[in-house]
Formats: sequence, structure tokens, C-alpha cells
Amino acid sequence: MAVESHEFEVSSQGNCEVIDLTPSVARLIERGQIKDGVATVFVVGSTAGITTTEFEPGLVHHDLKAAFEKIAPRDGRYVHEETWHDDNGHSHICASLLGPNISVPFTDRKMKLGTWQQIVLIDFDTRPRERRIILQVVG
Amino acid sequence: MAVESHEFEVSSQGNCEVIDLTPSVARLIERGQIKDGVATVFVVGSTAGITTTEFEPGLVHHDLKAAFEKIAPRDGRYVHEETWHDDNGHSHICASLLGPNISVPFTDRKMKLGTWQQIVLIDFDTRPRERRIILQVVG
Amino acid sequence: MAVESHEFEVSSQGNCEVIDLTPSVARLIERGQIKDGVATVFVVGSTAGITTTEFEPGLVHHDLKAAFEKIAPRDGRYVHEETWHDDNGHSHICASLLGPNISVPFTDRKMKLGTWQQIVLIDFDTRPRERRIILQVVG
Repeated sequence: MAVESHEFEVSSQGNCEVIDLTPSVARLIERGQIKDGVATVFVVGSTAGITTTEFEPGLVHHDLKAAFEKIAPRDGRYVHEETWHDDNGHSHICASLLGPNISVPFTDRKMKLGTWQQIVLIDFDTRPRERRIILQVVG
Repeated sequence: MAVESHEFEVSSQGNCEVIDLTPSVARLIERGQIKDGVATVFVVGSTAGITTTEFEPGLVHHDLKAAFEKIAPRDGRYVHEETWHDDNGHSHICASLLGPNISVPFTDRKMKLGTWQQIVLIDFDTRPRERRIILQVVG
Repeated sequence: MAVESHEFEVSSQGNCEVIDLTPSVARLIERGQIKDGVATVFVVGSTAGITTTEFEPGLVHHDLKAAFEKIAPRDGRYVHEETWHDDNGHSHICASLLGPNISVPFTDRKMKLGTWQQIVLIDFDTRPRERRIILQVVG
């Protein structure tokens, strides 16, 4: 049995920026000691989430943003904002819906992703953030 | 290699009640034999889900509830309800969207959560329930 | 420590078809060498997702479909479609929201699912597809 723990940071502009984590995650798995297993990718914090998507400009810069804006509009009413005098109630809603983690199987140190399927961070906060990503490799 | 299996119950009022599972999960990991690994938290049943959020009253008592009510309104039309003569069609939709599980990395028996990031159960059913939570610790 | 890697295919009609993966997954776990652990079920591709639901006709043939159509309408405007001259912008949105994987704890080679809780693939693409499902068993 083996566990390898990695952490790395990514800079985000927030506001539904979509960042491709696949190269970083793939490199860490390739260089690791574990041949077969599951990679859990987790974002620390409650205003960002992790999923997969085809990383192409239409989805990444427009369609995902529009979908989340429809689910939780930025100018909606959020008691969170009234309590804390901030402006990221919608960010919390989107992050909870999407979830902070993904678990991807790999064999021979290669993840079982599709050709047009990338692991992405979506940062819903309303300001630039340094995001801490945890990669826990078990196998 | 090691696996530790835990089960515990939480009482819920349903109707989108949000319950903080973090203290229970953290305690079981702290007292366990596994130092580094992944904690999978899973709710048994198809009308509740697991995610993370900032556990503060505005989000927990109002904003999350309002967001799910918008996605799947309680008084919408659901064929599920017509078939089974019940009233929880919207509960099933919300639960499937949110998903029943989360996987959280930990090192030194401490989960990699943010300060304002708690693991929560959201119970979408329309009546009080005893919910069975599975915690599977692998590492 | 042990990892068992499985792959299997399912035929889908797309258009939000919901396919029950539970019997296939349960059989592979039952016949495996690992007694206790976590089963990660992952779909390859960016226009399908994995979750749990009660597998009954009302939810499966109507209510889930209607919920996703409301979140990301098929005839909405998607820059993805304008760029690639296809018609599955909404499929990508639904797939990213739902997520491509689920992790289910098991003990004694039996998953901790509820009686009315099945593991399902939802295929959001707009045409029939052969879907490759990865089952990674760790324990």
C-alpha cells in the first residue's frame, strides 16, 4: 500500500475562471512510485470547485460561466452577503453544487481521461485568489 | 495497506436541512491507525447528498435552500410523485445533482479542509429521517 | 494493499438516457480479491456523468431529463456549438455539473448503497454512444 501527498498552488482571477489542472496532475502521477490507483484532486476553500470538461474556449470562457450565472446569479439576494457584508454568496452556492473534489483512476501512471476531458478548477470567488490544490494518490 | 470502515447516524428534519459532519469525521480519523490517505464520506439513500460549504447561518438556513428550490421547486410536476403518490420528486433531483459522496485527503490524521470549509449532509427529503453515514478511510 | 482495475462498455442512446450500472459494478466487486475498500466508478468523456438515483421510470425517463433541460436547455445559445458546429453545448454543461465519477464504500464485497439507490450513468450527448466505464477498486 502506498499514499503520495502533493500540494501545489494556482493563481486565479476568480469570477468563474476555469483553469486546466491536467498537466500538473499528470506529471506528478508519472513521476510517482504508484503504478495503479486513484488520484483524488481536492481544492481547499468553499468558493471553488473541481470537475472535468473539454478545455476549449467556448465552454471555458463563456458557456460554463453563463450556466452558473443562471443557477446562482451574481446580483441575486443572499443572506450570506447581508451577514458578512461581502459579495460572494453566489460563489458559495456554485462551489457547493459542483463539489471540491474529483477522483480519477489511473493505470501504468496514466489517468483514464478522454482525449477531450480535462480536470479543471472553477474559481467562483469575486477576486483574484491563490488556490491550494491537494493531490492524494492512493494505490 | 489499510482500510477502516465506520458508520454513524445523524437525525435530520429533511426539507434541505444542512448538517455539519466535520467534527464526527475528524474525530474518527484522529483516533484511527491510518496517518495519510483519503476519507470517503457517503450517505446511504437517494434523497440526500454530501458536499462542503462554509457552515454559517446565512448559507445554511437560507441561501442553499433557495438555490435548490430554484433548481427543483417543491411544487413542480414530477412523474415520480404521480407514480408513487408521494411528494419528494424534487428531493431525488437535488440529491442526484449534488451526489452522495465526497473524498477528502488527509495527512497526519488531519483533513485538508479550509478554515471555512465544512463537510455537510444536505437532507432533501420532506420528512424527518435518521441518516446513515459511511466513512471509509483508505491509506 | 491492492488495486483492481476493470473496464466495461455500455451502449447509450444519449439524450439524457439513464443507465443502471449497479449490477455490473456489484458483480465485479463480489468476484474480486478485495474485501473492504472504495469503488471508484468513472466515465471516460466530457458529455456524460455518474451519480446515484432511485432507478424507477418516473425519475429515469422524465424527471431527471426535465431538470437537466431546465438547467441547460438544448436549444439555448452555446459558444461551444458556434465554434465546433455541433449541437451538444448543453451536454457538456450538464456533464461538468454532475461530474464524471462516484466513490462508493464497500465491506465484505458489498457496496453500502440504499435499497432504492442505484449507481447510474447519465449520457447527455445528442447521439448514440458506446461509453467506457472504469471501475477502480482500492482496499
